[in-house]
Amino acid sequence: MKIAVLGTGTVGRTIAGALAGLGHDVVIGTRDPQATLARTEPDAMGTAPFAQWHAAHKQVGVATFADAAAGGELIVNATNGGGSLKALAAAGPGNLSGKVIMDVANPLDFSQGMPPSLNPVNTDSLGEQIQRTFPEARVVKTLNTMTASVMVNPARVAGGEHSVFVSGNDEDAKKAVTEILQGFGHRDVIDLGDITSARGAEMILPVWLRIWGSLGTGEFNFKIAR
Amino acid sequence: MKIAVLGTGTVGRTIAGALAGLGHDVVIGTRDPQATLARTEPDAMGTAPFAQWHAAHKQVGVATFADAAAGGELIVNATNGGGSLKALAAAGPGNLSGKVIMDVANPLDFSQGMPPSLNPVNTDSLGEQIQRTFPEARVVKTLNTMTASVMVNPARVAGGEHSVFVSGNDEDAKKAVTEILQGFGHRDVIDLGDITSARGAEMILPVWLRIWGSLGTGEFNFKIAR
Repeated sequence: MKIAVLGTGTVGRTIAGALAGLGHDVVIGTRDPQATLARTEPDAMGTAPFAQWHAAHKQVGVATFADAAAGGELIVNATNGGGSLKALAAAGPGNLSGKVIMDVANPLDFSQGMPPSLNPVNTDSLGEQIQRTFPEARVVKTLNTMTASVMVNPARVAGGEHSVFVSGNDEDAKKAVTEILQGFGHRDVIDLGDITSARGAEMILPVWLRIWGSLGTGEFNFKIAR
Repeated sequence: MKIAVLGTGTVGRTIAGALAGLGHDVVIGTRDPQATLARTEPDAMGTAPFAQWHAAHKQVGVATFADAAAGGELIVNATNGGGSLKALAAAGPGNLSGKVIMDVANPLDFSQGMPPSLNPVNTDSLGEQIQRTFPEARVVKTLNTMTASVMVNPARVAGGEHSVFVSGNDEDAKKAVTEILQGFGHRDVIDLGDITSARGAEMILPVWLRIWGSLGTGEFNFKIAR
């Protein structure tokens, strides 16, 4: 499948690399491809420059948000939550229309200090904001409840014995996303309901951050034991 | 141990009954014991009258919030989240001073429609509100992430292979609560950190409610796979 992955951070790179490895035709979208490729220093988080990652993943195309989205049959939103609506606007509503947006972002709000809080939260969610802003797109919230390496390789944790959620209004879109999740190796995909259930999925983040602090590693995941 | 359980709903009854079964000296606290015992009809949620439950659990005392708290060495807050501060105020700050408050309540807010949202949320939590309001008490948030039957009998779900969280500022208080949890059969007690981490534990509720809807049962729990 032709897939556009919006976002060049760790999550975007990890998902793009994994999808390409599974044989998909992947283009990473970024605001300014020249600038993204020109950086030679690690970013503030210590993430290696994009060009270094791209040298090892030449099969992944690099394009503007709009060009990537135009060519994609499915769009992955792997941008920072705070910038997602802007990035998707740059991708262009026409390039998103009718397409599945697999939204893996979290609306972390660092303005209230550490640990980050969420915005929106409680009575709204980023997943809903995206669906409202781009009503012709078919948004599915997923994968935001685990670290990037586990998103694409669930077997890294407890032999893959854990769960992933999907939220969205469109059943076919959730089916398409579930197939991608299963391609990564996820075996327990739980359908939480319509896109308003993205509130619950996003509100897991605060406890995720605390568990990360407690365990000293982000390589864990929630399993719904039943 | 002498334990006061505040709250006569399903959660309070379940915890009081289980603690009494483990040999603790348990008194249930309620606003008006006479009124609580006089009810003969199921409540709005269909919960059987308290007197019916109490007839089967005669070893559990029934007293006012204040009398129960006065006699308790450890206090369980099993009241409705929206009424917890009021119930604890009725229990009396002096009766809580120096004691561990095991807070299992969730601040569900039904005023925004269904499913309920949370209040407080995101940058505050009920656990923190209780700690701030009763600074001499030692609040530990726990057990609020699962249904009552699983709180006291984790083996009901997946052979007990799942996790429970504790949040609180006082290490000895968390140790005392952990011993109670282990008495119920919990084997994976994760310390999330200080009482501000109760935000994360409480913010699990929205996804819990959606998973409940999806699975058709509340008898599940989160296991932190790692």
